[in-house]
Amino acid sequence: MNPTASLKDRASSMAVAKAREAGAEVIACSSTGNAASSLAGNAAAAGLKTYIFVPSRAPKGKVAQLMTFGATVISVQGSYEETFELSKQAIDRWGWYNRNAAINPYLSEGKKTVGLEIMEQLNWQVPDYIAISVGDGCTIAGLWKGLKDLYAIGFIDRLPQLISAQASGCCPLNRAIETGEDWRPMKENTLADSIAVGVPRNADKALMAIRESNGLTVNVSDEEIMAAQKLLGRTCGVFGEPAGVTGTAGLKKLCEEGKISPNATVVSVVTGNGLKDVANAIAHCGEPISIPSDMGLLLKAFADNHIAVE
Amino acid sequence: MNPTASLKDRASSMAVAKAREAGAEVIACSSTGNAASSLAGNAAAAGLKTYIFVPSRAPKGKVAQLMTFGATVISVQGSYEETFELSKQAIDRWGWYNRNAAINPYLSEGKKTVGLEIMEQLNWQVPDYIAISVGDGCTIAGLWKGLKDLYAIGFIDRLPQLISAQASGCCPLNRAIETGEDWRPMKENTLADSIAVGVPRNADKALMAIRESNGLTVNVSDEEIMAAQKLLGRTCGVFGEPAGVTGTAGLKKLCEEGKISPNATVVSVVTGNGLKDVANAIAHCGEPISIPSDMGLLLKAFADNHIAVE
Repeated sequence: MNPTASLKDRASSMAVAKAREAGAEVIACSSTGNAASSLAGNAAAAGLKTYIFVPSRAPKGKVAQLMTFGATVISVQGSYEETFELSKQAIDRWGWYNRNAAINPYLSEGKKTVGLEIMEQLNWQVPDYIAISVGDGCTIAGLWKGLKDLYAIGFIDRLPQLISAQASGCCPLNRAIETGEDWRPMKENTLADSIAVGVPRNADKALMAIRESNGLTVNVSDEEIMAAQKLLGRTCGVFGEPAGVTGTAGLKKLCEEGKISPNATVVSVVTGNGLKDVANAIAHCGEPISIPSDMGLLLKAFADNHIAVE
Repeated sequence: MNPTASLKDRASSMAVAKAREAGAEVIACSSTGNAASSLAGNAAAAGLKTYIFVPSRAPKGKVAQLMTFGATVISVQGSYEETFELSKQAIDRWGWYNRNAAINPYLSEGKKTVGLEIMEQLNWQVPDYIAISVGDGCTIAGLWKGLKDLYAIGFIDRLPQLISAQASGCCPLNRAIETGEDWRPMKENTLADSIAVGVPRNADKALMAIRESNGLTVNVSDEEIMAAQKLLGRTCGVFGEPAGVTGTAGLKKLCEEGKISPNATVVSVVTGNGLKDVANAIAHCGEPISIPSDMGLLLKAFADNHIAVE
């Protein structure tokens, strides 16, 4: 329900407000895609010019948003890490206001509102767990800050455990928690483009949040992610993008492994709309029945597809 | 800000509630796409099975939603009119609960909430005009019902004039108003798929609403529609689908023609998210600059594209 259809709007609205406060006319960032389109949309509404760097793998929906919002978009033929590096050089060179993840300290003040809203909607009854997908680590760190703020001022009487869900093909932060070692870079090997972050930019804050909350980690395959997308769609009418449903995929896996009690209360955050990455959804959900307008052909199509019509 | 990203959610939530009240387990409709994905999503959340008929021209985003929500989808190789006819036969044959536009009288009780919300958000200060795109005619008729209800109970002290915006390539309702003759079918010749309705299913209610409000009609070309998409994106950070921005395109044209005073207050309703039809957006907004991660190549790309970096 965010204006540009991802949780990044919470950080981008803060970035735009702070950029205007600083008198900036140009704002820039690199992003796997959602922070990019979110910044471009929020900046357009505020009359700011944007330079946006995305890796060339960014799905069409996010690119269409960027171009419509009038951003100057540089699609970098390389990883998110290489994209980030080029944006950093450009920002240093031209002095643009910087909305890059983990660089701009105000962003987590925006991100934390997801924690405030969850608790408000639950009437301040704290769930046992909150599951969320993790890439750069900004969202889980912001969520945790919101919860800790509420706890500090006495709006809630305990803190939940966080569930950090990453893709098996790119899980540097979860690996650090699981091994107890420092985090090390990983390849960006997952179709969940928004969390395909091999060099997480907010590692310290994210690791601290997971550890402080006595959190759980869980890594899921692309197949488990796409199955969770379908499950959420069919049971809840919620269509999340692959990274958006990774928290749900992780939660399902933890339940199946018996690591979460059947009586536990859990919030699972869906961080981006499935419309942003239509190609992967269609590839995994299949195509519709296609026929001319004819009842005989409809009956035949139902029979051929083993659809027992009620 | 509707859960499946189009205004149709207002009608679909009502359809699902009424289907459950009637004890139905299966609900069906034909649609240009948005009512379809909206019904599929709302029905999935309520545990109802859906059969959905869409014309094969429906854009990928809407199809991806339908498949993810677990609907049985029949993509009809033909016009919306032919799609509607096949759905009618199937609904008659199997006795499914019917969410078709203009057949189910409860739907406009859902649609009218857009009128209630606009007025609530404007603190009951009535604008001079409300602009909206028109296909089957259900939305403008529902909007008008909501406004009339508010007027009847004294929440507002006057009624606005409606602006009925259609595509030049498919404007049977506006043609009827403009010529004073009965409406006649038209070809469905526009890229604004959601309002490409050659045989409007709610003609009587829509024509009544436009006439009662002393409304204006305006027809816009596909080029004017896509220009409005870009304008809304660049100035407001709002990304609407082609049919969603047709009201804005019409409003711009009426202003340019001097048919609306510069002092008039106008609400323009954007009825669907641009993420539903990414292909048309990219075709009209262009592709990003694409380079490897290298500052020299970035400088060259800015120069080649005549981008004066600030």
